[in-house]
Amino acid sequence: MSYLVRAFARLSTVPRSALRQYQNPKASRVFSHSYSSPTLHPQVDEEAEDMGKDKAQLSLKVPKGTQDWEGKDMVIRDRIFSTISTVFKRHGGVTIDTPVFELREILAGKYGEDSKLIYDLQDQGGELCSLRYDLTVPFARWLAMNPQIQNIKRYHIAKVYRRDQPAMTKGRKREFYQCDFDIAGTYDPMLPDAEILRIICEIFQELGWNGKFSIKINHRGILDGVFAVCGVPADKIRSISSAVDKLDKLPWDDVRKEMVEEKGLSEEVADKIWDYVQNKGGPEILEKLQKDESLKDNQSMQKGLSDMELLFRYLSAFNVLPFIEFNLSLARGLDYYTGLIYEVITEGSAPSSSSSTAHSLQRSSKKVSSSSKPPASRNPDDEDRSADPSVGVGSIAAGGRYDNLTEKFNPRALVPCVGISFGVDRIFSVTKARMDASGGTEKVRLNEVDVFVMAFGGKGFDGMLEQRMHIARTLWEAGIKAEFSYKVKPKLPAQFKAAEVGGVPFAVIIAEEEQKAGKVKIKELGLPEGNPEKEGVLVRLGDLVPEVKMRLRRKGRRDGEEEEGIDGVGDISAETEGLKIGARDPVVES
Amino acid sequence: MSYLVRAFARLSTVPRSALRQYQNPKASRVFSHSYSSPTLHPQVDEEAEDMGKDKAQLSLKVPKGTQDWEGKDMVIRDRIFSTISTVFKRHGGVTIDTPVFELREILAGKYGEDSKLIYDLQDQGGELCSLRYDLTVPFARWLAMNPQIQNIKRYHIAKVYRRDQPAMTKGRKREFYQCDFDIAGTYDPMLPDAEILRIICEIFQELGWNGKFSIKINHRGILDGVFAVCGVPADKIRSISSAVDKLDKLPWDDVRKEMVEEKGLSEEVADKIWDYVQNKGGPEILEKLQKDESLKDNQSMQKGLSDMELLFRYLSAFNVLPFIEFNLSLARGLDYYTGLIYEVITEGSAPSSSSSTAHSLQRSSKKVSSSSKPPASRNPDDEDRSADPSVGVGSIAAGGRYDNLTEKFNPRALVPCVGISFGVDRIFSVTKARMDASGGTEKVRLNEVDVFVMAFGGKGFDGMLEQRMHIARTLWEAGIKAEFSYKVKPKLPAQFKAAEVGGVPFAVIIAEEEQKAGKVKIKELGLPEGNPEKEGVLVRLGDLVPEVKMRLRRKGRRDGEEEEGIDGVGDISAETEGLKIGARDPVVES
Repeated sequence: MSYLVRAFARLSTVPRSALRQYQNPKASRVFSHSYSSPTLHPQVDEEAEDMGKDKAQLSLKVPKGTQDWEGKDMVIRDRIFSTISTVFKRHGGVTIDTPVFELREILAGKYGEDSKLIYDLQDQGGELCSLRYDLTVPFARWLAMNPQIQNIKRYHIAKVYRRDQPAMTKGRKREFYQCDFDIAGTYDPMLPDAEILRIICEIFQELGWNGKFSIKINHRGILDGVFAVCGVPADKIRSISSAVDKLDKLPWDDVRKEMVEEKGLSEEVADKIWDYVQNKGGPEILEKLQKDESLKDNQSMQKGLSDMELLFRYLSAFNVLPFIEFNLSLARGLDYYTGLIYEVITEGSAPSSSSSTAHSLQRSSKKVSSSSKPPASRNPDDEDRSADPSVGVGSIAAGGRYDNLTEKFNPRALVPCVGISFGVDRIFSVTKARMDASGGTEKVRLNEVDVFVMAFGGKGFDGMLEQRMHIARTLWEAGIKAEFSYKVKPKLPAQFKAAEVGGVPFAVIIAEEEQKAGKVKIKELGLPEGNPEKEGVLVRLGDLVPEVKMRLRRKGRRDGEEEEGIDGVGDISAETEGLKIGARDPVVES
Repeated sequence: MSYLVRAFARLSTVPRSALRQYQNPKASRVFSHSYSSPTLHPQVDEEAEDMGKDKAQLSLKVPKGTQDWEGKDMVIRDRIFSTISTVFKRHGGVTIDTPVFELREILAGKYGEDSKLIYDLQDQGGELCSLRYDLTVPFARWLAMNPQIQNIKRYHIAKVYRRDQPAMTKGRKREFYQCDFDIAGTYDPMLPDAEILRIICEIFQELGWNGKFSIKINHRGILDGVFAVCGVPADKIRSISSAVDKLDKLPWDDVRKEMVEEKGLSEEVADKIWDYVQNKGGPEILEKLQKDESLKDNQSMQKGLSDMELLFRYLSAFNVLPFIEFNLSLARGLDYYTGLIYEVITEGSAPSSSSSTAHSLQRSSKKVSSSSKPPASRNPDDEDRSADPSVGVGSIAAGGRYDNLTEKFNPRALVPCVGISFGVDRIFSVTKARMDASGGTEKVRLNEVDVFVMAFGGKGFDGMLEQRMHIARTLWEAGIKAEFSYKVKPKLPAQFKAAEVGGVPFAVIIAEEEQKAGKVKIKELGLPEGNPEKEGVLVRLGDLVPEVKMRLRRKGRRDGEEEEGIDGVGDISAETEGLKIGARDPVVES
């Protein structure tokens, strides 16, 4: 278990103060755009508006549980997407895109009691539709509709919709992004499963989370075997399983009480279950189960154990064992899983009120991630729970094997699948808190403009507008990102200011005298005193493009040496250093 | 007008047969994935299913007017997105992301009679919401909510929703993508407007449409001036304007009849209007209007003319005049435009039944793009009109200046805007038809895998699974895209076949003997006989990564020399050659 101890010992890098500060985005978010100076972001205060609102007045806001993405948040989120899709493609993924709404009957009966969280479209004539709840059911529906496709590695990055109680700053939203990768097809056992776990590791490594994440794994066959061997009646297996799944948030005493008092299990059976489900660790847990004589005759258990044996071998070949925790209490809510299941956690995944100790004092037996009451009145579960300490970020990625889901849509289309879904909003929340704490957010540029084209002159200066436009056009034609002032006669300081606000690295400056000699000046902004190019360099107009390009390349190399990207997020074009434990230190340390 | 003649003379490159063939995607679409051999795509036949359907049976389909995107279509569409967003960023664009649904009252009263096409979410308690109808109103709502943002170049690529009658293969859908770029802020006149038109040109040039598109421009002030000077009563201006807008689809006689008989305009006024709105061309049209004494006293007209004079100057500096048609009959439907308006057309934009002659025999006065009946019964306007010759692709991009829209949300937030929206589904339809005709589609790869890791051996060969996994891991760690067979003991031909189906360019082959000597073979697939590396090259295991990378770079360069990308779509990383007319020939000619 030493690797786990090591991995968890590193889970100390989200400063709690940063997470707390980030819980109030209105107070902490700074927003600016090119040309506008940075100002505090005065978002409309929803509470105040709701309370004092004149009914005839327009509500100038987004629907509850949703948000606008903008500014640096948007840039950071886009880099997370790029990192994730780069890894997906490295493993042969191809993407598909399904409609945001599905026929209502496609979603029906797939999500158990969470079905109440589905958004329905109004019946306006025509078909009855609902917004998708995840990307897995639409994928299975697509496979069932296309029975000629017997195997595919597909990824899908898109928004899904759940009418759940929001906790915005923890990434729990009603509209949120999922990034899914699924391998469909009939293959030799556990090979695709192992590659999915490898993909998880590559993504969090490349996001710069080395040492800050852990993958809990379990197997539905093992769990079912435990329940059978302990004597849980068949009709109680699902509800007992969901009680076991709460062990990451509740102490055993609470879960035992739920099993015995609420669900009518005998105390003896409950205690036998505890003997098994408290096991967590590495391959040694597998050995222990393999030696357990009482499990020998249970087929479901034996299938699970032989799968896990293969898996551990493959995980070793893929060098991902150090990130794995075999945890017998992991159950996962969804009914459709049939084999391996997994969940990725980080600091902040658990509620903060119970994060310091596994056996907290928290008494609520209600699962925080899905309230069981349907929203009955207006504004029922609408209130944001971001400040509630009993709400954690939750798992940041999760998935498993589901071999029978396509069959539900088309009995002739049986395609076994295994997949993973990354919760990007939650990953973003944690990333942003870390970046705010480390000062990384400040370095994020809003746009990518490389050159600001300026002009200046003395008395009678006409602004040289058409000359500036001509130079901008020349740069655009060469693929260089460039802007210029939309004023006919701009002042030079205003032009420098605009470049500075946008973080534009280079100015191309035209002046009447130099223009007549066929020359323009290239000036790198923000150079220190004493740099030979501090005052800029005059180049012939015909050499402008290659001279600018040479300087952009040079600056790119220099920046690349200085930092490895923004908290590991950002350097997505660079090749990964791979999963060499210890070879790359966490970029942010508190 | 010579440049227009030249531009339109080139509008001959979508072979009509290709477009017809593509009208039935079930017959023409070929789909394949790695490991599976290419097969015809047997989509569920919706008609047959609807007719013979047992009501208890699940409808295995997507909602009408929507589609799954997959395979090569998805790859091609992604490249169109990349091309567009590369240009947006080159001009300083930053992106924002708004929720897919808005409060219903935000959308209310913004779309005139097209409001009936808005999708509403069902009232399930809480707020009343609707799916967004475009990206412009959410942008204006966002600007109004953030009054500290006085200027921004924002782009947004996202799906929008309209309950319109679909014509799928012409890119007319109920769920479709828009790519919007808008410049908000108070600037000297016509500078942002000119840059928007430059952006349009860059995008279609870089999509390889040189000579295949044309931008019609007009000005609301000029149009209103014409109506006022001709004597249209103020309360009839909007309805007469919408009649004029039909002149791209209907002959003047029909439009005149609508004005006089339906809308009660005098014949004299109608004929005066015709004198003006039949004008189209370049700057000479502007000169003609400037000399027209009867327009001298109309302020709206004079403002429009001075705007256009500036614009033509700026368009000349930006080298986009050759793509422009000043067309006095362009009116645009939406109420919120206040200045310059524009629309991009290509062959296929107009209905095919009237495409060969401007004055067709088509008698319908109903605008095809928005049916005026509300959908009353079940399946009212649900039927696909792809085969209807009176339905064209329509405009492929459109926009204009809207200076007062933010004010509607927040009277304190007056931010003038000008923007453009690209209809990617329509652009895709035309691109795909061209690629199918030119054979370009065949060259599109589904995935991006660079290396397939294989093993082979003689008697007692165990498949070398863990060795293959280890090599795959080594490649992944170096950022190289790699796959291997998910079989413990795969046969060599099956491994080659899998690589071939996926179009993977390189194999890394391990064999027991060579493995013992610490060597592996790199083999480039598909090399011609006689190439020195035809049989592959043995390299030391430690040199594998640099040897593979060197060959990937070499192949990249070779491919780059062979073709400039797929019909101009695809070589998005390469720098643009710019808008040098004639410098780049259209890639596809029929």
